[in-house]
Parts: sequence; structure tokens; C-alpha cells
Amino acid sequence: MTQAIARELLAAKRPYTEIEVVNLEQGPEAIESAYDESRALPGLLELVQKAPEQGFDAVVIACFSDPGLDAARELVNIPVVGIQEASMYLAAMLGSSFGILTTLERRVPVRKRYAAALGLGDKLAATPVLDIPVSETVGSLSRMKEIALARAREALNQGAEVLILGCAGLGDWAPELQERLGVPVINPNTAGLKIAELLVDLKLAHSKVRTFQRPRHVV
Amino acid sequence: MTQAIARELLAAKRPYTEIEVVNLEQGPEAIESAYDESRALPGLLELVQKAPEQGFDAVVIACFSDPGLDAARELVNIPVVGIQEASMYLAAMLGSSFGILTTLERRVPVRKRYAAALGLGDKLAATPVLDIPVSETVGSLSRMKEIALARAREALNQGAEVLILGCAGLGDWAPELQERLGVPVINPNTAGLKIAELLVDLKLAHSKVRTFQRPRHVV
Amino acid sequence: MTQAIARELLAAKRPYTEIEVVNLEQGPEAIESAYDESRALPGLLELVQKAPEQGFDAVVIACFSDPGLDAARELVNIPVVGIQEASMYLAAMLGSSFGILTTLERRVPVRKRYAAALGLGDKLAATPVLDIPVSETVGSLSRMKEIALARAREALNQGAEVLILGCAGLGDWAPELQERLGVPVINPNTAGLKIAELLVDLKLAHSKVRTFQRPRHVV
Amino acid sequence: MTQAIARELLAAKRPYTEIEVVNLEQGPEAIESAYDESRALPGLLELVQKAPEQGFDAVVIACFSDPGLDAARELVNIPVVGIQEASMYLAAMLGSSFGILTTLERRVPVRKRYAAALGLGDKLAATPVLDIPVSETVGSLSRMKEIALARAREALNQGAEVLILGCAGLGDWAPELQERLGVPVINPNTAGLKIAELLVDLKLAHSKVRTFQRPRHVV
Amino acid sequence: MTQAIARELLAAKRPYTEIEVVNLEQGPEAIESAYDESRALPGLLELVQKAPEQGFDAVVIACFSDPGLDAARELVNIPVVGIQEASMYLAAMLGSSFGILTTLERRVPVRKRYAAALGLGDKLAATPVLDIPVSETVGSLSRMKEIALARAREALNQGAEVLILGCAGLGDWAPELQERLGVPVINPNTAGLKIAELLVDLKLAHSKVRTFQRPRHVV
Amino acid sequence: MTQAIARELLAAKRPYTEIEVVNLEQGPEAIESAYDESRALPGLLELVQKAPEQGFDAVVIACFSDPGLDAARELVNIPVVGIQEASMYLAAMLGSSFGILTTLERRVPVRKRYAAALGLGDKLAATPVLDIPVSETVGSLSRMKEIALARAREALNQGAEVLILGCAGLGDWAPELQERLGVPVINPNTAGLKIAELLVDLKLAHSKVRTFQRPRHVV
Repeated sequence: MTQAIARELLAAKRPYTEIEVVNLEQGPEAIESAYDESRALPGLLELVQKAPEQGFDAVVIACFSDPGLDAARELVNIPVVGIQEASMYLAAMLGSSFGILTTLERRVPVRKRYAAALGLGDKLAATPVLDIPVSETVGSLSRMKEIALARAREALNQGAEVLILGCAGLGDWAPELQERLGVPVINPNTAGLKIAELLVDLKLAHSKVRTFQRPRHVV
Repeated sequence: MTQAIARELLAAKRPYTEIEVVNLEQGPEAIESAYDESRALPGLLELVQKAPEQGFDAVVIACFSDPGLDAARELVNIPVVGIQEASMYLAAMLGSSFGILTTLERRVPVRKRYAAALGLGDKLAATPVLDIPVSETVGSLSRMKEIALARAREALNQGAEVLILGCAGLGDWAPELQERLGVPVINPNTAGLKIAELLVDLKLAHSKVRTFQRPRHVV
Repeated sequence: MTQAIARELLAAKRPYTEIEVVNLEQGPEAIESAYDESRALPGLLELVQKAPEQGFDAVVIACFSDPGLDAARELVNIPVVGIQEASMYLAAMLGSSFGILTTLERRVPVRKRYAAALGLGDKLAATPVLDIPVSETVGSLSRMKEIALARAREALNQGAEVLILGCAGLGDWAPELQERLGVPVINPNTAGLKIAELLVDLKLAHSKVRTFQRPRHVV
Repeated sequence: MTQAIARELLAAKRPYTEIEVVNLEQGPEAIESAYDESRALPGLLELVQKAPEQGFDAVVIACFSDPGLDAARELVNIPVVGIQEASMYLAAMLGSSFGILTTLERRVPVRKRYAAALGLGDKLAATPVLDIPVSETVGSLSRMKEIALARAREALNQGAEVLILGCAGLGDWAPELQERLGVPVINPNTAGLKIAELLVDLKLAHSKVRTFQRPRHVV
Repeated sequence: MTQAIARELLAAKRPYTEIEVVNLEQGPEAIESAYDESRALPGLLELVQKAPEQGFDAVVIACFSDPGLDAARELVNIPVVGIQEASMYLAAMLGSSFGILTTLERRVPVRKRYAAALGLGDKLAATPVLDIPVSETVGSLSRMKEIALARAREALNQGAEVLILGCAGLGDWAPELQERLGVPVINPNTAGLKIAELLVDLKLAHSKVRTFQRPRHVV
Repeated sequence: MTQAIARELLAAKRPYTEIEVVNLEQGPEAIESAYDESRALPGLLELVQKAPEQGFDAVVIACFSDPGLDAARELVNIPVVGIQEASMYLAAMLGSSFGILTTLERRVPVRKRYAAALGLGDKLAATPVLDIPVSETVGSLSRMKEIALARAREALNQGAEVLILGCAGLGDWAPELQERLGVPVINPNTAGLKIAELLVDLKLAHSKVRTFQRPRHVV
């Protein structure tokens, strides 16, 4: 999955942007639960913490669940982008309501809760479920794409005008699905990258005055 | 702080309830940020995971930020109680709106976000801030209590009818503050314990059908 | 129905809790409408008013519509528990969303309005309807239970992770339905009793400073 | 108070509208609490029930708390108007947000809850409090009007663009306050009357298909 | 369509109300999009601006999309009524939730957005779609009415207790649909007229203190 | 103002982006009201309509009120960016809540309404008002900046963690205010430009399937 994401990002980045795509050395095989998220945090936050001194101007957490987003923003002053957050706000600019293609039924309430936390609960019109484990989403098996297309069409009938691919591993399906569905389809990985480029260009980062203040004790 | 909480719980528990109050062997000194929460997770979840086989009927996470609550619920079938969640829902049963005495200004947006996620955003009328580090909240220094009282009175004027002590370390102030303020004051530690007793009595635990399904890979 | 409720409560109460289950001497046969609620109020409030002097530590209004809850809280200083309110907040602690098994279609909007007033409008995922009059809900006719099970399963498919039995007369179905559905099923009567025990233990009652001030003229 | 309301309504009604203003034979002196509301219900609903056979085309409940509104609508097919409901929806048509001049601090949460139930929680910008008992609001004591004006001006500064007089007894202050404040001031009594006339003209009444179905047993 | 609306209004107005129904000299054939709305604005606002000096006491914008409502209110001091706004608030007084019969699928999100802006998002239970162009809605073709009835019945099953005819051109269907559906059916044209009469009677107009202040430069 | 905006955009654009900043030939001097917005629409939409055939890949409407945004999106397939919408969603990614520096008190309710429509009503913590006419905002008069700074600091105390400059004419103050306030300050003009670049890069545009379908009759 890491290599697929790297390919997408290299194709989408601007000429003068340099990116490095890293996988956690230790962590869960896939992130399908809050428990999996918790297991990713130590390695993830260690990487984020080192990013500024390594010269990076921004960090993108390329897991759709945005694990550790708040903690990462507390640790550093450079922008930290959550790809779910970025995708949802972009989707909200592109239509009255949107759908999120979700890998597992169990994550549907988590997606709804997140949309609500962003203020977009009423704009999330559908959460079509693929029902395939994250680990099987890499690659472009045609059968899975047909399932995804069928579910996405139901989502459009339920009112969605835009589709978000709700898993980093699904990102590279975006162009084909956009072509076949006739609606904007957001690849969360490239959406996250582009928001990072935008924030760096605008010299903007998350506010450090209250929520994201640096913790008093950092190890 | 652990001993203070243990004393409160021993005084509040029913005769036949057996409780064990444990502190994490490894973890942050205090939990004042999302980063601190992330550092508490590995040790916390390890303890939760062992709880059923050790014969416990329920788990209470006695940190007001409810760190790791979702992940803990995924891991076990016995009830896992978050003391912030329990306190807020109890407060909502006791008045039209409530306030949360908060240790640090930086946690105010986090409390508001949590209330909103529980559906109680409109009932959270005030978030009086003590502005003292968590590590200094243990014990009952009279100066701090006076500050707390003054802030709490402002909160009542802002519409709060109930007060939640928004830090596990502040729990033992509840009887005195309730007496002096003339409104219900919720100690989150005992609130959490009692909700745990209630759930065990009613043979209820969190639902395992969707959000809190057991993760596929648990180490 | 009163006897069935009494049996449930006696089985659920703690050893040292003493309870008295009383039916209104005058009042409607069943409460299926706002009009029925209005007819229950005079007798209900008279009972509530006498409760403290009779030595009761708390009152539970064992009708799912929570009739007269605000007025009762104004009249006395001991906790008054509404079983619908208690059930909904407990349900919200046990899953991302819940359903309410409702006796009559006409009460569905009333349940939704109540959930919204508690802040739980977005967590009420389904309101399966039995469509049987309240007066026929007492007892455990197998046909009705099968209907209830079928409707409840639809509710789970609509996103409910927890089920509330939305009528005091249905309370004793909870264990069997919980067993067969595999999700937590809340008996509103025992939920109300246990919240009452919890509040008495914690020396908490509704706030008397604003909403629930004692009326100036009480007859 | 009844006579003052009658004068206002006679002045506001259309030439061909016939009105009868009746006070409850039995009931509370004033309605300042949920308990007071409960005491008004038996007499109120008896009057409502007789209204259609007495030839009335509509009923207006001229108490700002809208006591018994749902039950009254269940009982009859002719329109039943709640003056708080009518006033709030009219106010919402006249400005981005409104304020309600409230007699007692204790009723502020009740007003907010009602606005929220109507969907207007975010449009209720201020609830200036007179802090005078309902029984003293009849008549036009100049001192009270000056207090009302001062509080109303604060409400305008808090964002209110329209003012509702939140007590039937205050209705006749509307013209003077509107003149002096320079914003629309709604008299809930005349607002209720005019909505009743409007509904009768349009042959509209509340829907009887679900929420307001006739109760099965009416005495 | 203009003549049909004129007939409805003449039948619904009070004896002493004088009305003039005018069509824009220049403007779109029908209003089915935001673009169409923008094309109606210059002519519409010119008419509104002249209304007070022509002796009119109120203006009703008889297009269901309420085009130019805010701008019109800025321009004049007499009440300006939007028929969608008036219809929705009336519907909210007549049942727990309502539906809007909508001409085109593309306008469904626009109706939902408007309901949400009025605070009525949760009360809009259904948006049955006729899928016929506005220009074909004038007249009472029986085929279209049967489609409308079928769609409206689905809306009632989805929880709507009241129906709004969501197009000025559909207004004259109201009596027949109300008769056949057995629920209140709101004709937006007559609803708007009656709200205008009501406001004039009550000497109320929109507030001029903030949102609807007169623009500094009017041509 | 047009020249100031052009300077900002030329400084912020990427090397290979070509931009053309055009002012309406006919239109209001400034946009301070819904009426002013309506006057801008004919000229604005004419420009938008020609943009694709002139080879533009995206359109940014550089007026903070986002006039004509929906109509513009209906007319063309290339992305149309509203700078208020873009600024608010970016602000929501940078802190728990944000403030909007507003030129005129009368526009405060309009800003709040817009935030609510985007789902961000609860995140808009403050709307500090400059109270200077739009036409006087061009240039960097030091007195106005000091007023802006004082108001912005109040906004931060009210909970805002990010500041949006709520007028296209104020955009060039962003770097200095960000420096002096210590929080992210969003220039809506450059925010809009960068979102346009991002959408073009990602081959995304607003959905054309429902809300933004092309109108049937375009002149």
C-alpha cells in the first residue's frame, strides 16, 4: 500500500515539492479499529516529531482514520494534514452532500462521528460499504471495483453528489471511478498532499494558542 | 492522585463491590494533552485487555479525558466506563445545563468537542478554568478551592445548573463544593464507579455489533 | 402491568434498597397520547409530593413517556428519575446509536422529539413500531415477541447498536431479546431504578437553582 | 390579566371575527412553573374539548408557556394555536435572530428548550429577564417598563433584531416598546389570534395522521 | 401561471384587501436554478422598490425559491414575504414534520438547505419529486396530479404529517390534494398572502436594525 | 481594491499559474448588502460564463460574500471558488474555532448564517467588527490596523484560534496581523487562489449531477 500511495503522490505533487513516503517500522498491519489506531501512535508520533528537524515543511498522515492528528499537531509547528479531514472539507466545497466509500461496516459509525465533529454530519449523505479488509484493498482487482461502482451508484441515489474514497489504499481508483460515475471522486492521499502544499505556500499552520499548544513534557 | 481516587472509590462503592485501583507502570506524569493521552494508551490497553481474565466485571478509566475508551471497548466484552462520558450524561439528567471545571485553558475546546460528540454541546453552558497543572491538583489546598469556587459561581451565572469536576484529581472536592455552591457537583471518579456497578447489575455492556467489534488482530 | 414492573424491580434492586410500586388511583388506563399524560398528572404529582415525607429517597416515574417529570422535580428535592431519559442516556453510553421499540406509530415523532431534546437526536437510529396498544403489551405473548424481534432486527440494520424497550409494559422482555438479538437491550424500568439508586448513593439530585426551583404556590 | 388580553384581542381582530376570552374556573393564579402548567391542564382541556361543538373555528391558548398544546391538538380537529410557538415562528420571519423578554430567571432554560424544539435555538439570541412575578405584570407600571426597555436594549446589543414579549400579561406593552426600541415587538396574544384567523381562512388545521391523532379513550 | 396565482389570491384574500399580481417584464421563463433566480433579481427588486410609494402595505414574492428576499427587505420598510419561508414555518405549526412536493430533483438539495437555514432541517421529512419542468406545472392535468398523489403518499409514509406544494405553479392543487390525502396541504401563494395580511394587521415588518438595514447606495 | 488583490495573488500564485484579475465593468462600488450582491450578479455571471472558452481552468470570485457562487457553478464545468467558503473550511482545519474580522456590524448575521450553512456554525467563535465601510478598507491605514488588532485580540479571548480577514479588501493585512497576533490569519484572496490551483491540479470540480446542473435556458 505504501508504494501505491507513493506513486500517486509523485504523480500529483508539484515539480518543486519533495516528498518522502514512509511506513511505520512498528505498527499494525492495517488500521481497521480504534485499537489499531492506538498501536500506530507511538511510531507515528516519533516520525512526526522528527519531521521539522529533518527539514520537512509539512506532514501528511496517510491513513484515512487520521490517527494521532491532534497529538501530532501539538508536537510540531509545521502543518500536519489529516487526509480524512482534508477530503471531507474539499468534498463539502464540491457539492451539497457527499458519500464516503468505506471498507468495513464497523467503521461507518466512526466516519459519521468524524463528519459530525467537522460540522459536516448533515452533508454526509451516504456511506457505501465495500466490506473488504483493508489489507485486500491494495491493487485494482476488477471485481472489487465493480462492487465499489455499484455501491457508489446507490450512494448517488441517496443524495451524494461527490464521492470520497475512504481508505488510503483505495486512492488510486479515483480517476477511473470519477470517469465512470460522472461525479468528483476524491483520492484522500492526493487531497492531503495538496492541502499540505497549499498551507506551506500560504505560510499557514494550525494554531498553537489553545488546542494544539505544545505539551509540557515531551519525551 | 491514585491514592486519593482509591479513597474516594472505597468510600463510594457498595459493600459487596470489590475494586482495584491501578496506576500505569509506564505512562505520562499527567494527562494534559492529546500527546499525553497517546502515551498512556499502550499501558492502559494492556491493563484493560487482562481485566476479564483477572475476574473483573467492569473497567473504569479514571482519567477525565477518557483516553483509549473506544479501543478498550473493542478489546473486551465487559463494560468499560469513561468518567467524562458518564459525568456528562449524569449532569444532563440533573439540570438544563452544566459546567465543567477545567484545569487548563488548552483543554476547553477538547471538552466542548467531547460534549458535542455526546450530543450535549448545547447543554454545556460554561467551562470555568482553574489554570493549574494537573500535577498540582492533588490534595485540597485552600487557595485552589477558593479559586474553584469563584470560577464555579461565574459558571452558575452563565447558566450552568450542575457542575462537573473536570479532572480525576479534583474528585474529592465534590462534597465541599456541592455544599458551598448549592448545586449538584459531580465527582467523575465516583460517577464512573457507580455507572460501572449499574451496568454490571443490569447485565449490560457496550454493543459489540458494529463500532466496538473486536479487532481482527490483537497482540 | 404494575405487578410485572414490581417483579422486575424486586429482582433488579440491591439487597438493601426498599421499593414500593404504586399505581395511580385515578388516571388513564394506559398512556398513549399527550392527553393521557395530562390525565395522569394530578394523581402522579400528588404521589410525588408526598414521597419525601414518607421517607422515600428517590422517585421513579415508571411510564416511558416521562409524564410530569419537570413538575415533579420542581416539587421535591429528592431525585426524580424519568425512565425514558435514563434509558436514552444509558443507551448512548453503550453504542454509537440506538433504537427504541415503540408501541404505536403515533408516538414515533414524540420519541424523536424527546431524543432531540436530550441531545441524542442523531444517535436515535431507528424507531421500530410494534403497533399494539399499550394495554395489550403486558405478558409475553409469543406472537408479539416475534414481531418485536423482527422489527428490532430491521432497526439493527438501520444502524442501531443498542435497543431500548420503549414502554414500561415491555420491560420484562429485555433478557430474552438481549439474548436473541446479541445487542444490549434496555429495560426502562430497571434502568430507572438503578439510576435512582446511583443518585442516592452519590448524594446527587436535580439542581434546584433555576429550571427546577420550587413553585411559589403549591397546593 | 384576562380583561387586558380581551381588550388587545378585540382591538386586533378582524371585523367579522368573533372571539370569546375565557379564564379557567379552576387553575393556578399564574403559570410560572411546570407544576403550574400541570394544574391548568384539566380545566384547559375541558374548555378545548367543548370548543368545536360550541361553534368555535379555532382555539388560542393565551398563556406564553403553551400548556397542553399537544393534548389539545389531539382532542379536536379545529386549529389550536400556541402563542409561544406562533410568536417564535413569526419572529423568525422578521429578523436573523430574536429575543424573548422573560418574567422570571427560572423560565429562561424553558424558553431556550422550547426554541430548540421548534428548530429556532440558534436564532434565540437573548432572553432578557424582568424578574417580576407574572401576577404583577398586568397593568403598565412605568418602572417596570423602564426595566423592560433597558433589558431589551441589552438584548439588541447581544444580537436580537426582534423582541417577543414572553408573557401573555405583557402583551399590551408591545406598541410602546416597538416605538421606543425601533425594532418589531411581538405581542404573543395578538400573534396567536392572527395565526388562528389565518389558519381558519386557509382551511388549515394541525395534521391528525400521527402526532395529533385523537386519543383512543377520551373522558 | 400568473393568472392562476391571481385567481387563488383573489379567492383567498380578505374582503378589504386589495392585491395586484404582477409578472416581471423581463426575467426568466421559469425559476429552476440559482442562475434563473439571478436573472429575476433586477426586475424583481425594481418592483419591490416602487411598492411603498405606490401605496402597497406589503409585498409577496410569489416564487417558491424566495429569490431576492433579503435584498428586498433591505430596500423597503413594508413587510416582504417569502412564500417558501412562510409555508415552512406554517407547516411546522401543523405537524411534527412536513414534506415538500418538489418539481425537479435538482432543487431537492436547495430545499433542504433552506429548511436547515430556517432551523427546520430536522422537520423536513421528505421531498417527493414530481420531475416535471416548472413551465408544465400550470393547469391541473390529471396525470400529474396522480403522480403527485403517489409521491405525496410515500412522503407521508416517510414521516411527513403536512405537505407543502413546493412551486407557485402548483398552488391551486392544494384543496384537492388536502381532500384526498387527509393531511394539511399548504398552497404557498395563499400562505404568503395571509402572512402579509397578518403582518400588516399587527403593524409588524422585518427588523431594520442589522441584517436588513437599508443599503448605503441604492440606484 | 482590484489592484491590491492582484498584487497579493501574483505574489502567492505558483510560477506556472497564469491569473487575470478583472473588475466588473458595471456593478456596485462595494458589496455591503444583499442588494449590492444582486447588483453584482449580471456582470459577474457574464464573466464566469465566458471563462472556459477564454481558456481559464478555474474562477475565483474575489468578494468575501461569495455572490453568485451557486449560479456560477451551474453555468460552467470548471471549478468556481468562493473565497468565504474556502477561507472558512481552511480555518476549520487549523484550529478548534475561528473568528472573522467583519467590516460592518450589519454583515455579522450574514457571516453567521453562512458559517452555519457550511456546517461551521459551532466553530465560528467570534465576529469582531471593524465598522468601517468597505470602500475605506483598501490600503493599510495604521489606525484601522490597530483597531483590527484590538478587536482580533478580543476574538482570541472569546475562543477563536484562527482569524479570517472577512473582506477581500483587507487581504493584504494578513502577514502583519499573523505576525503580531501569533495565530494563523487567513487572507481570503490567496486562500481562494490556492484552492483553485489545488482543484485544477487534482482534476476536481464541483459536481454537476444535482445542485449545480446546467440551467435549461441560459442566455
